[in-house]
Amino acid sequence: MSEQAERAQKLDAVDELAGKRAEFVVDDVVYLDGNSLGALPAVVPARVEDVVRRQWGELRIRSWEESGWWTAPERIGDRIAPLVGAAPGQIVVGDSTSINVFKALVGAVRMAGEGRDELLVDATTFPTDGYIAESAARMTGCTLRPVAPADVPGALGDRTAAVLLNHVDYRTGRLHDLPGLTAAVRAAGAVAVWDLCHSAGALPVGLDEHGVDLAVGCTYKYLNGGPGSPAYLYVRRELQDRFDSPLPGWNSHAEPFGMRSDFEAAPGALRGRVGTPDILSMLALEAALEVWDGVTVEAVRAKSLALTDFFLECVAAYVPEGRVECVTPVAHGERGSQIALRCSPELSTSFEQGSAPIADAVMKRLIERGVVGDFRAPDVLRFGFTPLYVGFADVERAARVLAETLA
Amino acid sequence: MSEQAERAQKLDAVDELAGKRAEFVVDDVVYLDGNSLGALPAVVPARVEDVVRRQWGELRIRSWEESGWWTAPERIGDRIAPLVGAAPGQIVVGDSTSINVFKALVGAVRMAGEGRDELLVDATTFPTDGYIAESAARMTGCTLRPVAPADVPGALGDRTAAVLLNHVDYRTGRLHDLPGLTAAVRAAGAVAVWDLCHSAGALPVGLDEHGVDLAVGCTYKYLNGGPGSPAYLYVRRELQDRFDSPLPGWNSHAEPFGMRSDFEAAPGALRGRVGTPDILSMLALEAALEVWDGVTVEAVRAKSLALTDFFLECVAAYVPEGRVECVTPVAHGERGSQIALRCSPELSTSFEQGSAPIADAVMKRLIERGVVGDFRAPDVLRFGFTPLYVGFADVERAARVLAETLA
Repeated sequence: MSEQAERAQKLDAVDELAGKRAEFVVDDVVYLDGNSLGALPAVVPARVEDVVRRQWGELRIRSWEESGWWTAPERIGDRIAPLVGAAPGQIVVGDSTSINVFKALVGAVRMAGEGRDELLVDATTFPTDGYIAESAARMTGCTLRPVAPADVPGALGDRTAAVLLNHVDYRTGRLHDLPGLTAAVRAAGAVAVWDLCHSAGALPVGLDEHGVDLAVGCTYKYLNGGPGSPAYLYVRRELQDRFDSPLPGWNSHAEPFGMRSDFEAAPGALRGRVGTPDILSMLALEAALEVWDGVTVEAVRAKSLALTDFFLECVAAYVPEGRVECVTPVAHGERGSQIALRCSPELSTSFEQGSAPIADAVMKRLIERGVVGDFRAPDVLRFGFTPLYVGFADVERAARVLAETLA
Repeated sequence: MSEQAERAQKLDAVDELAGKRAEFVVDDVVYLDGNSLGALPAVVPARVEDVVRRQWGELRIRSWEESGWWTAPERIGDRIAPLVGAAPGQIVVGDSTSINVFKALVGAVRMAGEGRDELLVDATTFPTDGYIAESAARMTGCTLRPVAPADVPGALGDRTAAVLLNHVDYRTGRLHDLPGLTAAVRAAGAVAVWDLCHSAGALPVGLDEHGVDLAVGCTYKYLNGGPGSPAYLYVRRELQDRFDSPLPGWNSHAEPFGMRSDFEAAPGALRGRVGTPDILSMLALEAALEVWDGVTVEAVRAKSLALTDFFLECVAAYVPEGRVECVTPVAHGERGSQIALRCSPELSTSFEQGSAPIADAVMKRLIERGVVGDFRAPDVLRFGFTPLYVGFADVERAARVLAETLA
């Protein structure tokens, strides 16, 4: 047994979150793609069956009241709130992340003062945020300016309306300085909008503490809500009265069943709702969130860093030098819960695959051998570490299989 | 046995769709609210269980390809297409109706020629369409003008960019003249946008045949997709290249996994997609659509008219005069698949309920007695007739219980 395999056993033995693994449907695959689609919490299937068979099948329309369907978006929002450091009443669940980015950015521009007509967006953002930001800018008469997150403070000015940033970069796994950047944006009189897709459920966010204005996030990565489960929108309490959504649906109305032709926005976070909520997916998410009972985000973060540290250690010990390069920052303060490895162009001869990228071919071989991560163009292998169901032995095995594959 | 009860038996005996009822989860309730939430198709629970346990739980991320998750929006759109008279490749499923109204209206304005800056909207529309139309107008620099559908031809002009109409009015059940109004809108050089929420699955729509430009609809009423199941967007083939969505997400990109920072819209209907599709709800819908195998919309329409005719006959025979007034048109060509009855103010003394509306109190009593319809403010009882699982004996019983309640 290698030194690393022995260390893995010891680390697993003292892992206070190890028991959580039993609350997920897992098998002998090393699943390091929970940063793309979280594994299935064991409680979900029976809950979904109840929603389908009893709530929909038997109670039918009565479930909107009797099964709590109507209030699900804000109730589940309140369940997510402590995971992202928000007091209740500031988050609603519904729609996709892209749709929520649109709501947040247009809402942000409308909150910004007169003469502020520039939107800044993370130049390395997940593409959908950039596309939606471009649309929001176009539809509000703003100019869109892509900047590297580190350059945001220098780019802020009197004309900055809002800034859209990612807490963790989807490709590199870099954790950006949410407290510092939020403070800079707000000091410049602009509105700070954060995308939490790759941080919520993996590390502390502290929305309230750090004065974030608006935030969005998906729920199918570290929150394990299921494929395409609904996203969420956070609007800081003090800004809610000024939040003027570009998507005012009947569910955002103060009196939804009044069937009034004039629009009056609901109070509080509710005005972030739009149309009829997607109940099956939403209640699957609600069940999935039960795995967080008794878990602190701090404990998750501690284990996440231990897992990624250990993976880097194993990769260094096992993988021949020069095959891959880590593009995720080594400093804990700059690292999310994934490790991104860039494949060396030297690997190309052993991984010829027509015109397919090398990293794509490498990942396919890893998956064949039971280690599931993913590939992001053009040359990155991504490995996500979800502390609730990934252990240290998994990490050691992943690095070992990677080394064998690249040998 | 009353004359009507005898007739009900005879009508049920010759009903060619009677066998379809066995494909739904039904009980002894007379469920006349399928125009709000369709009943559960029997095939759905097992399908959803497979999606959750096997596709998500076991295959996890691989299901995006192996279980056909990625292509679900267009595949299910093509399954809906024949129900609304559309050739394949013009419909995508996803997001709520409200969101799709926004895509359609902004897209319509952008297609309209220079100098066209007025949006017409059905003045009696379901509120969310009006709220979203107001937002679309505001964000595209248009003026919004509510008009009664019958007045649309006279209101069209050189400045009309687009017209948003409901095929069937949600409150009165009135069926509007889609072919005639579409022709008038197009003759005026404007773009015709139809909301099919209360018609799709209940009567022929003929999107292609009548030259409709854009259309949206929900799937949880006559299509039985489940609570809050995803809506759909139709973009006529000839217009797809010019469809410029205000919500360009990574799923509407020509190369979604290229992770490109520049946006290039996907070809065809795909550009109506936005973010990651909501798989659980979407695949429940896909299973639900199987009940349409071997069913023609024409047969459904014929039974729908027979059901509503028979309901009116029973109400006339059983309910004492002056208690309710039918607000749904009697002419078949103007009637959807619901009957809306306005409660007489004279009923107020027997239905005192604090300040609650009379119709609300009446409907609550009907529901207690196993006849489920719904109430729409201020004074309307709505009864929806879904030909796939409602029979003539149900109709007779509903009218009888209504008469007893109002006696």
